[in-house]
Order: sequence, then C-alpha cells, then structure tokens
Amino acid sequence: MADRNSPIGVFDSGVGGLTVAREIMRQMPDERIVYFGDTARVPYGSKSCSTVIRFTRQIIRFLLTQDVKAIVIACNTATACALEAVEKEVEIPIVGVIHAGARTAVDSTKNGKIGIIGTEGTIRSGVYTRVMKEMREDIDVTGKPCPLLVPLVEEGLLHDSVTDEIASRYLSELKGKYIDTLVLGCTHYPLLRSTVGRLMGPEVTLVNPAYETALELKQILEGKDLLCGQESNDVEKYHFYVSDLAEKFTSFAASILPGQVKETKQINIEEY
Amino acid sequence: MADRNSPIGVFDSGVGGLTVAREIMRQMPDERIVYFGDTARVPYGSKSCSTVIRFTRQIIRFLLTQDVKAIVIACNTATACALEAVEKEVEIPIVGVIHAGARTAVDSTKNGKIGIIGTEGTIRSGVYTRVMKEMREDIDVTGKPCPLLVPLVEEGLLHDSVTDEIASRYLSELKGKYIDTLVLGCTHYPLLRSTVGRLMGPEVTLVNPAYETALELKQILEGKDLLCGQESNDVEKYHFYVSDLAEKFTSFAASILPGQVKETKQINIEEY
Repeated sequence: MADRNSPIGVFDSGVGGLTVAREIMRQMPDERIVYFGDTARVPYGSKSCSTVIRFTRQIIRFLLTQDVKAIVIACNTATACALEAVEKEVEIPIVGVIHAGARTAVDSTKNGKIGIIGTEGTIRSGVYTRVMKEMREDIDVTGKPCPLLVPLVEEGLLHDSVTDEIASRYLSELKGKYIDTLVLGCTHYPLLRSTVGRLMGPEVTLVNPAYETALELKQILEGKDLLCGQESNDVEKYHFYVSDLAEKFTSFAASILPGQVKETKQINIEEY
Repeated sequence: MADRNSPIGVFDSGVGGLTVAREIMRQMPDERIVYFGDTARVPYGSKSCSTVIRFTRQIIRFLLTQDVKAIVIACNTATACALEAVEKEVEIPIVGVIHAGARTAVDSTKNGKIGIIGTEGTIRSGVYTRVMKEMREDIDVTGKPCPLLVPLVEEGLLHDSVTDEIASRYLSELKGKYIDTLVLGCTHYPLLRSTVGRLMGPEVTLVNPAYETALELKQILEGKDLLCGQESNDVEKYHFYVSDLAEKFTSFAASILPGQVKETKQINIEEY
C-alpha cells in the first residue's frame, strides 16, 4: 500500500519526460521517483489516440506494481490522448503535463493570444485549446505541430543551423498570429528553449509545462498529506525502467540528469 | 495450407517497406500481397536487436495466420537484427532486404570500396559488412548511420534544402573514403535517390536493395514452383494491415503506391 514515503511514478514515451522528472527532483528533492520510458514504442506523437491510451494503461499497471503514491504522465501526447480516460480508473492522484502549463499561459497572456507547439498527436487532439477555453472563454489559441523537433533534439542538434531553419519554418506561422505567450507543449522542447526564444523574440513569454507540472504535483501531494516526510534511506532514490535498452536512453538521460541515472532496467511492458 | 496462389507476406516497421512491395508488384504483377506495417511501434532503427527480434516474431505469427507462401522482411533493421534468428523457425521461404543488395554491391564495385547508409540499428549490427566480406574477403566497407533521413522523408521533405544539408553532412564522411558503390540500406532511402545521387556524383553506383530483393524473391519462388499460376480472382489483390491507424500511413502509402491502397485494417500485433 502506497504511503507518503512511496515513490512518485513518472512516465513518458521515451526520454523527453526526464525534463519533468528533473523539475520534480529540483522542487521536491526528498521524493523518490520511479521513471518509465517506453523506448520500445517511442514516439507516441505520430500515433493514434486509441493506441496511446492502450500503451498508457499498460504503463500505469506497471507503475502500480511499484507502489507509487502518485503518477505523472510526463508526455504531452499521452496526457492529451489518455489522461481523461485513465484518471477515472486510478485511485491515486494522476497528473498530466497539460493542465498546469495551460493555466500558466492563460494567467500570463496580456492580449489573449496564445500559441502551442507540440507533436502532431498533441496538436491534433486540440486538448490545449479546449482546456484553455474552459479557463477563459475569449482566449485565442493557435496550435502548430512541429514533428521534426523531437528527432532533431534526440540527435543532439540543440544548437545547429538545421534546427534553427526547421524551427523557424514552424514558428513563422505563429509569428503572424501576434501571440504574446507560447507553450512548449512537448517535453523535448525545453531543451530548445533558447532557439525558440530567440526566434519568437523577447516580447513572447515561453511557458515550460515541466516546471508548472512539478509545482502542481507538489500542491496536490501537500493537500493529501502525501509529501515525503523524511529524506529517503534508499541507496538509490531514483529508479529508471525502459521497454528497450537502447544506448540512446542512457546517453540522453546522462545529458539531462548528470550523475543521477546509475542503472536502467528493461521490462516487457506488453506483459502489463 | 499455403500454395502457389497464396499471398506473399511483406512487413516493415512502418511505411518504408512499401518501396519493396512496389518492386514486387512491378516484377511479379500477378502475385497477391499481404502487407503489415508496425506503425504502433515504428521506428525500429533506434531500438535494440532483442526488441526488434521480439517484434519480428509477433509479425511473422500474424502473417502465418494469413496463409502466406513466403515472407519478405522489408526492413533493413529487422533483417539485420532478426533474419538469422527467425529463418530457422519458419518453414516457408523468408527473405530479408540485405543479402540481395549486398550481392549486387559486391558485383558492381570496381575498386572494392563500398559504402552503406542506414539506420543506427542496421549500421551498428555490422551485418552488411559481414555479409559482403563473406562474399568477397578483401572488400572495404564503410557504414554510416543517417538517423534523421527517415523523419525527413516521412515529413515529405524529399526535395528540400534541409534534407540536402543533413544528407550532405552524413555523406561527406563517405566521400572521403573513395567508395564507388553505395547501398541505400534503408527502405526509405530510394525516395531520396536523386538527392543522394547528386551529392555522391555520377561515379558512384547506387544500389537499391528493394529492387534486388524482389528479384531474389522471384527466383526463390520459381525454384520452389511457388510463382502464382494465374491472375488472382480476388477483388483486392493487395491487403494492408497496420498496428496503428495513423493517417500518416494512408497518405504516405498513397504517394508511394497511387491507387493501390484502398483499405488499411488495424490489428493488435501484441496479441500475436
């Protein structure tokens, strides 16, 4: 039975969710984390919602075997497709990466024009628009899918003329909409923050849902008296599981969380 | 029980194998084809061989339920990782995309220097080098992984300055090796044939394993008296199955095989 000293479960289609895990580590340094990256089936962004929901259910079943006290869907596509379906099925708190980022964007915009960049799955779902319009009806939201940014980030081309060119093409449409706030609606994009910021200019506020999600999780755990009471005695506070033991996970994880990823275990997620 | 009028099973991690299916349709227009694209778990190229072998076994089990008379692994990564493991397990002929292309490259080179481009999985496996060295010991093989070319092709950037720039970076290493023959070791790459040809120059022969594989398959079927005896009475000669019903498959398939992909059915490949 999960209690306040149980770990937080965090999952993503692959490595991107590590930017969310990093924010949880920063804001709640005493908490234990079990991270799962679905590296055998990555990416989710170009797949249909019914498939993403099926994958999400399997991962939640796995995380529950690890006695997690809360679950973070650290993936915009999975949040967009599956959060609504699965939150009714789980008894512990479950948080996606969309709601907190949407709230911050709505609070931050002055002219009511907000842009969202994300994968095809996230943008096609229209979830950011729906959530933000529920918060403030007259908000004007423009979504732009940026499918090539994830592979470019995963190839390490964070500061590269090709990434600049591709990002510039994607963002040019948003520049014409006079947005004053842009949500980085994919967990990989915080790694392109400087590129996106330079292309959009200083008058556009960038919202990083990873940061806002960690904050929301902290408030929920506090409200339910589930914040970790003491520093963990566990030798390893952070445990990492993947569905495919590709080298890419380890090398990418090492760049996002230097020194924190000591061991990565492979599980067969299709069995859950 | 499969006989000469049974279909040929062709599979790939996604859409790339359609370039192989297209060659089979051209060279053996009477044959029926059952195509499976593992669009729920695409791509394979960045995943580990043990995972790719597991996926391949599931797909073969599915294709056998369709009474196929032969199987084509129309994916370089799956051929590199899994062909050797699965060919002993299957009683019908099973053909990969590597052997025939390797044979043509070895026959075509004059200076004995051959280049291979492919995914990380294909190049890391070293299978092209091994196969070609078995054919001719003194051959000099240079492999170069080109991970961004698949997403660029799938985004439709076939003739684009960004694709030129990325391809040029990947190929510059091969240009320094004075190769006279280059194998397009990924089923997506025939779609970039003109770009690669222009960058490598007219003195380099490009080998398209899709073409060579269809030829090899035809010879095997002939040898086993399994070539289709008559034009199929089936209303639909070609059947397409995917593990995820993403729009991308349909639109991409329509561009590679105009008019041939009338319906695409989704199956849950994890159940096989």
